[in-house]
Amino acid sequence: MHIRLINPNTTAAMTAKIGAAAERVAAAGTRISATNPEAGPVSIESHFDEAISAVGVLDEIRRGDAQGVDAHVIACFGDPGLLAARELSAAPVIGIAEAAFHFAALISTRFSVVTTLGRTAIIAEQLLHNYGFAQHCRKVRAAEIPVLELEHDSACALERIIAECRRAKAEDGIGAIVLGCAGMAEHSAEIGAAVGLPIVDGVSAAVKLAESLVALGLRTSKHGDLAFPPPKPFRGRFDYLGC
Amino acid sequence: MHIRLINPNTTAAMTAKIGAAAERVAAAGTRISATNPEAGPVSIESHFDEAISAVGVLDEIRRGDAQGVDAHVIACFGDPGLLAARELSAAPVIGIAEAAFHFAALISTRFSVVTTLGRTAIIAEQLLHNYGFAQHCRKVRAAEIPVLELEHDSACALERIIAECRRAKAEDGIGAIVLGCAGMAEHSAEIGAAVGLPIVDGVSAAVKLAESLVALGLRTSKHGDLAFPPPKPFRGRFDYLGC
Amino acid sequence: MHIRLINPNTTAAMTAKIGAAAERVAAAGTRISATNPEAGPVSIESHFDEAISAVGVLDEIRRGDAQGVDAHVIACFGDPGLLAARELSAAPVIGIAEAAFHFAALISTRFSVVTTLGRTAIIAEQLLHNYGFAQHCRKVRAAEIPVLELEHDSACALERIIAECRRAKAEDGIGAIVLGCAGMAEHSAEIGAAVGLPIVDGVSAAVKLAESLVALGLRTSKHGDLAFPPPKPFRGRFDYLGC
Amino acid sequence: MHIRLINPNTTAAMTAKIGAAAERVAAAGTRISATNPEAGPVSIESHFDEAISAVGVLDEIRRGDAQGVDAHVIACFGDPGLLAARELSAAPVIGIAEAAFHFAALISTRFSVVTTLGRTAIIAEQLLHNYGFAQHCRKVRAAEIPVLELEHDSACALERIIAECRRAKAEDGIGAIVLGCAGMAEHSAEIGAAVGLPIVDGVSAAVKLAESLVALGLRTSKHGDLAFPPPKPFRGRFDYLGC
Amino acid sequence: MHIRLINPNTTAAMTAKIGAAAERVAAAGTRISATNPEAGPVSIESHFDEAISAVGVLDEIRRGDAQGVDAHVIACFGDPGLLAARELSAAPVIGIAEAAFHFAALISTRFSVVTTLGRTAIIAEQLLHNYGFAQHCRKVRAAEIPVLELEHDSACALERIIAECRRAKAEDGIGAIVLGCAGMAEHSAEIGAAVGLPIVDGVSAAVKLAESLVALGLRTSKHGDLAFPPPKPFRGRFDYLGC
Amino acid sequence: MHIRLINPNTTAAMTAKIGAAAERVAAAGTRISATNPEAGPVSIESHFDEAISAVGVLDEIRRGDAQGVDAHVIACFGDPGLLAARELSAAPVIGIAEAAFHFAALISTRFSVVTTLGRTAIIAEQLLHNYGFAQHCRKVRAAEIPVLELEHDSACALERIIAECRRAKAEDGIGAIVLGCAGMAEHSAEIGAAVGLPIVDGVSAAVKLAESLVALGLRTSKHGDLAFPPPKPFRGRFDYLGC
Repeated sequence: MHIRLINPNTTAAMTAKIGAAAERVAAAGTRISATNPEAGPVSIESHFDEAISAVGVLDEIRRGDAQGVDAHVIACFGDPGLLAARELSAAPVIGIAEAAFHFAALISTRFSVVTTLGRTAIIAEQLLHNYGFAQHCRKVRAAEIPVLELEHDSACALERIIAECRRAKAEDGIGAIVLGCAGMAEHSAEIGAAVGLPIVDGVSAAVKLAESLVALGLRTSKHGDLAFPPPKPFRGRFDYLGC
Repeated sequence: MHIRLINPNTTAAMTAKIGAAAERVAAAGTRISATNPEAGPVSIESHFDEAISAVGVLDEIRRGDAQGVDAHVIACFGDPGLLAARELSAAPVIGIAEAAFHFAALISTRFSVVTTLGRTAIIAEQLLHNYGFAQHCRKVRAAEIPVLELEHDSACALERIIAECRRAKAEDGIGAIVLGCAGMAEHSAEIGAAVGLPIVDGVSAAVKLAESLVALGLRTSKHGDLAFPPPKPFRGRFDYLGC
Repeated sequence: MHIRLINPNTTAAMTAKIGAAAERVAAAGTRISATNPEAGPVSIESHFDEAISAVGVLDEIRRGDAQGVDAHVIACFGDPGLLAARELSAAPVIGIAEAAFHFAALISTRFSVVTTLGRTAIIAEQLLHNYGFAQHCRKVRAAEIPVLELEHDSACALERIIAECRRAKAEDGIGAIVLGCAGMAEHSAEIGAAVGLPIVDGVSAAVKLAESLVALGLRTSKHGDLAFPPPKPFRGRFDYLGC
Repeated sequence: MHIRLINPNTTAAMTAKIGAAAERVAAAGTRISATNPEAGPVSIESHFDEAISAVGVLDEIRRGDAQGVDAHVIACFGDPGLLAARELSAAPVIGIAEAAFHFAALISTRFSVVTTLGRTAIIAEQLLHNYGFAQHCRKVRAAEIPVLELEHDSACALERIIAECRRAKAEDGIGAIVLGCAGMAEHSAEIGAAVGLPIVDGVSAAVKLAESLVALGLRTSKHGDLAFPPPKPFRGRFDYLGC
Repeated sequence: MHIRLINPNTTAAMTAKIGAAAERVAAAGTRISATNPEAGPVSIESHFDEAISAVGVLDEIRRGDAQGVDAHVIACFGDPGLLAARELSAAPVIGIAEAAFHFAALISTRFSVVTTLGRTAIIAEQLLHNYGFAQHCRKVRAAEIPVLELEHDSACALERIIAECRRAKAEDGIGAIVLGCAGMAEHSAEIGAAVGLPIVDGVSAAVKLAESLVALGLRTSKHGDLAFPPPKPFRGRFDYLGC
Repeated sequence: MHIRLINPNTTAAMTAKIGAAAERVAAAGTRISATNPEAGPVSIESHFDEAISAVGVLDEIRRGDAQGVDAHVIACFGDPGLLAARELSAAPVIGIAEAAFHFAALISTRFSVVTTLGRTAIIAEQLLHNYGFAQHCRKVRAAEIPVLELEHDSACALERIIAECRRAKAEDGIGAIVLGCAGMAEHSAEIGAAVGLPIVDGVSAAVKLAESLVALGLRTSKHGDLAFPPPKPFRGRFDYLGC
C-alpha cells in the first residue's frame, strides 16, 4: 500500500519532516512518500496562503493518482483543497485536521487545539463547525509562532507550544490536545511527556486513517457530491487541467 | 464610486452579462466594471473548479486594488476565495451567494435556492451553514442545467429554471427564491413574473451591498482574522505573489 | 425614494438625532423622514417597553404606507414589531439590529455588540439566535448606560461606550463592533476613531439596506408567512385596526 | 391558590371555554379565573394580531397581580407577550405553547404540532427554536381552520383537525401530538380517542405547570434578565403604564 | 395517586431523604413512596456508576408497575435509564435532571447548574444537549463534593455548595440555579435564602411533573419509539427479564 | 496487538460472525478475539435491551483489561456502555456506530443509515446528535428486520436490506450507506455490489480505528471526564464491582 503525503507548502525541509513523521507510524506493508508542490507559499498562515496552496495540492493529487498511490494525505492543518481533492480522486483523501479531530474525539470527551498563529484560529474553528466537532472542542489556542519558526528555532517554539498546552490543560477542562500544525508532528511525543495529556498529531492520525480505508477497500464515493468534476476547458496557465 | 465585478470563470460572454446586470441596478454615481481571470475554468460546477478559480479571483482582487476600485464583487454563487480576498484587500468584498441570502432573509422568513446542477447543491448548503442562514433556507434545488447552457440555449434553460421555481413555490412553504448562479441574473425579472414570488439575484444584491458599505465607509476589518496575509516568499509560477 | 425612520420610543429629541444620522448617509435621491409614535415609553429598556412600543411602530407603519413611503426602518436595537410590520406592509421593513448584524458579518468574521444595559443583552442574544448570527457574535456587552443618558449626559456615556468597546477589542478576538442602541448612531465615527475598529451602526446600515431593496424592487413577500394579516374586528381602543 | 387564565383575544365565548378547560383539570385547592382584554383582536392568526394582543395581555397581568393571583397563564399558542409578562410579574407566567412542548417531550421522543392556519406555523417554529424543542418536533402541521371556526362550526373543524392528526401519526414517526390552539382544548379527549395517540393540550398543561411552580414557591426570577422593567414615563394612551 | 421515587443508588439514608423531600411538596391526594435497588453502587459519580445503576432502576420500574404506582421518578441527576424506563412502563417516568431544567427555564432566561464533582459535569452537559436546554444553561459548575459527603458532613458540603452558587450568581449572568444532585434536595430552601436566587431542586420538580401528567391522564406514548420492548429471552442472571 | 470484540448480546452465533468479520480485515500483526457476556438479552432492539446489555459489556471490558487486550470494540450499533467503558479502561474503546459514522464522513459528504427496526432509529439519531454527525446523515432508515432474523433467515433479510439501501440511494442524495447493525457486517460486500455505493460496516471500521489508536499509542485519556471511576462499595449482586 502506497500512501502519499502532500505538504501543501513549498518548504522541502518541512516535507521531509512530515514524511519522517509518517514513516514512524506507518504499518509494515505501507510505503510512504512525501511531496510538495513546486509552486506556492513557503508556509500557510492565512486564507490567502491556503487558497494558493490548494492548486499545488490538486496538482499533487493528479500526479499521485497517475503514479497509482492508494491514498492521499493533505498535510496542512487547514485541510486546503480537501473536497476538491476528493472530487479529483477515487482514492481516499484525508486531511490532517479532520484526522486529528476524529482521533481526539475517540479518546476524550473534550479537547483543545493548539495552533501556530492566532489569525489562523478562525480556519480551525470553521473546520470544526463544518466537520461536526464544534461541541467537542473547548478552545482553539495559538502559541503565536510563525510556521517556519518551527523549522528554524524549534527549541524556542517547542517551549511556547508546551506552555500553551499546559494552559489548555489547566484551564479548558479537557482530556486531550490536538496539535494544530503539521510542523509540530515531530515533537508530539515530547509535548505529551511534558504536558501529561494525550497529544493528537494529525499527520500520524491521517496516515492511520488512510491505511484503514485502503485496507477496507473504502474509496471516495463517486456517486453524488464527490463525483469526478465535469470535464471542461480551462484557460491560460491552467489549460493543462482541461479536456 | 467604482465597483469591480469579478466573474471567477473565464467565459467572457458571461462576464459581459454579469456586468450588464450590475449596470442595470447601479446607483447614479456608481461606476461598474466587470472582469474575469485570464486563466481558469470556463464554468464553475465543482469544488475543483472553485479551487482553481480562486487563484484568478485573487489575482483580480490585487489588480482591482492596484486600480483603486472601491469594492469587489465575486460573481459566482459559491463565493470562491471570499475570505482570502477579504484578507488581501481593505476594500469591501462581497460574494453573490451571501448577498442573495442576506436580502432573501430581509423579505421572507423562508426561502429556497434554485441552482444549476445537483452536484453543486452541497456548496450552497455549506455556505448556508457557514454564513448562518441554514434555518432560513428550506431547500437547495437544482434545475440540472450545466452552467454554460445558460449561455447557449437559454430559452430551454430558462424554462427549466422556471419549472423548478414553481415546484419550490408549491412544495417548500417559502416566500422567496434565491437564484443560485450568476448566469441567471439577466433572467430574474422574467422568472419573478412567471413564478409570482420575489426572486433574489445575487449579482444585483451584491452590487447594492458593495455600494452601501462604500457609502458608509465600512471597509474589511484589518484587525484580527482578516488582517493582510503575512508577506512571505512564494515559489514557482506563484512567485509573483511573494515578497 | 422615501425612507421612513420609525423611532419606537416617544422621545422626540432622539427621533431627531436618528433622522439626522439617516440623512448623513442617505443617497442623493433619497428622502428621509423620521417619526415616533405619539404613545409609548420614552425609552426602550426591557421586553415590556418593547411590547408596548410595538403598537406605536405598527401605527407608524400604517401611516407611512398611507403616505406612500418606499421603505420603513425600525430604529430601536431590539427590532420591536419587525415581523408584524412585515405582515402589514408590502414595502421593505428593516430593523436596525438585523441591519447591523448583516453588515458586521460582511466586514469581519467575528464581532461583538456593545449595548446600553446588561438587562437588554438577552434581547440582542435572542435576535442573534433567531437571525442566524449567533456564531458570528463573540459577546454582547453592556456599557450599563440608561438609554436616555445618551441624550442628557452624552459625554460621560460616550466615554463608557468607548471603554467597553476597547475591552471588546482587547478580549473578544473580534474584527468589528456593533453599536447596540439607535441613540449611539451619532457617535459612531468618534467611537471608531477612538477604538481603532470598524464600528457598525444599525441606523445607517438599515438606511442603506432599505435603499438597496427599493432600488432592486424587492418588496416584502406577500406569499406565505408574511402575507397581509387576515382582516377581522378589533375591540375597544384597538377597533381602528379592524375591518 | 388562584390561577388566572388570560385569553389574549377578545372573544368572550373562547375565554369561557378556556376557563372551563382549565377548571376540568385544576386541583382541589385551585381557584381558576379566566379573562380577556377589553381591547384587541377577536382572534390571533398573525404576528400582527399577536403584537396588538400583547398589550392586552400585559394589562391583564397587571390587573391579576393587583388582585393577588398566584400565577398567570397566557392562553394563546403563540405565547404573546410572555417575556414582557415575566418582567412585569413576580408570579409565575406560563405560555400554553411552551407548556405543551414541555409535556410532550416528557411522554414521547418526537411530536408534531397541529395548528390552525399554515401562516401561523412560522410562529410555532420560532417558539420551538427559541425554547429548545426544535429537535423534538418533527413537523408543524396546519388543519387550515380559521381560529373562530372552532367556535362557530366546531364539528367540521374537529373533523379536519382529526384528519390532520391522523396524517401526522401515519407520516411523521411521532409518539404524541401537540394541539396548536387554545380553542382546541375542549376537544382534546375526543381527538385522542379518534387518533390513538397522546394529545397534549397547552391549556391544561399550563394550568398544571402553574400549580406546580406555585406549590414549590418558585416565582419568576427578579435577578437579571427578568427583573421588573425600569420605571419611566409613557406617553399618550399608554401613560397609565408610566411612573 | 401513588408516585414512586426511585433512588438509583443503594444508600438507604439518601432514599429516605429523597422520600422526605418528595413528601414535603406532594399534593394532598398524593401518596409518596421511595425505594432504591438492592444491588448497585452506593453513590453515582461516573458513567460507570450510572450504567450499573440503570439495571436497578429498571427493576424498580417493573416492581412499581406491578404494584400499580401511577408514575415513577428517577431521583439521580444523570437520569440513568430514563428512556429504557419509559419503554418498560406506560406510566409517566420523570428524571430529576430534566424536571429541574424544565422548571428553571420557566422562571428564568438563563440558569447555571451546581453539581457535586467536576467529572460528572459532562453528564449534565450531555443531558442539556439532548433535552434541548443547552442554550438556557450558562455553566455547569461543580462544588467538588463526593455525593456521600452530602450525607456525612453536610454542614461543610452545604457551605461549599452555597459558595459555588454565589460564584454562579456573580459571574454567570443567570436568574436561577439548578441543584445537580438529589442529595442536595433537602437544603434547597437554605441555599436559596443564602444566595438570593430561585433554586430549582429536581426531586420536588419531578414530583410536581409526575402529579401533573397523572392528573391530565398523559401517559408515556406506546406508539413508536417508546413502545414496550420486544419480548425475548435474556440469559444468565438477567433471565428473569426475558419471556 | 490484541483487539477484543465484545458482542453485547448473548447470541454466540452472532459473536462468531462478528469475530469472523473482524478477522477478515485485521492487519497482519493483529490478534482478534470475540466474546459476549454470559448474561443479557439475546438481541438488542430497544433502550431497555441496551441498558441491560451495558452491564455485560462492562464485565467484558474488565475481563479484557485483566487479560491484557490492547483495545476493545463494542460491537452493537447503539454503542451501549461506551462512555462507562472508556472510564473503566485506559485502553482505547471504540463503538461500531461511531466508527462507521467517522469513516462514512471521510468518503462522502452525506450518508444514510440502514438499520434493523424503525423503533431503534431514535438510538442512531441520538448518537449522531451526540457525536456531531447529525448534519452528515440524511436519513436513518429501517429495513424492519428483527436482529435475529439476520441469523435465521438471512437471505430474506439481505433482500430487504438491499431494497432499503437502493431506496436510500435513489431518494436521499447521499454518497455512502452505513449499515446499522453488527449482524449485517458479513454481508457488506454483497450489499455494496448490489447497490453500487460504498457501504460502511461498523465492525470492520472499529477494528481499523482500534488498530490505529494502538499503533499510535493513543489511549483513553485518564485526565478529566474519562478518569477511572471513583472506587466505592457496590451492593447485592453487583458487589464484585466495588472496592
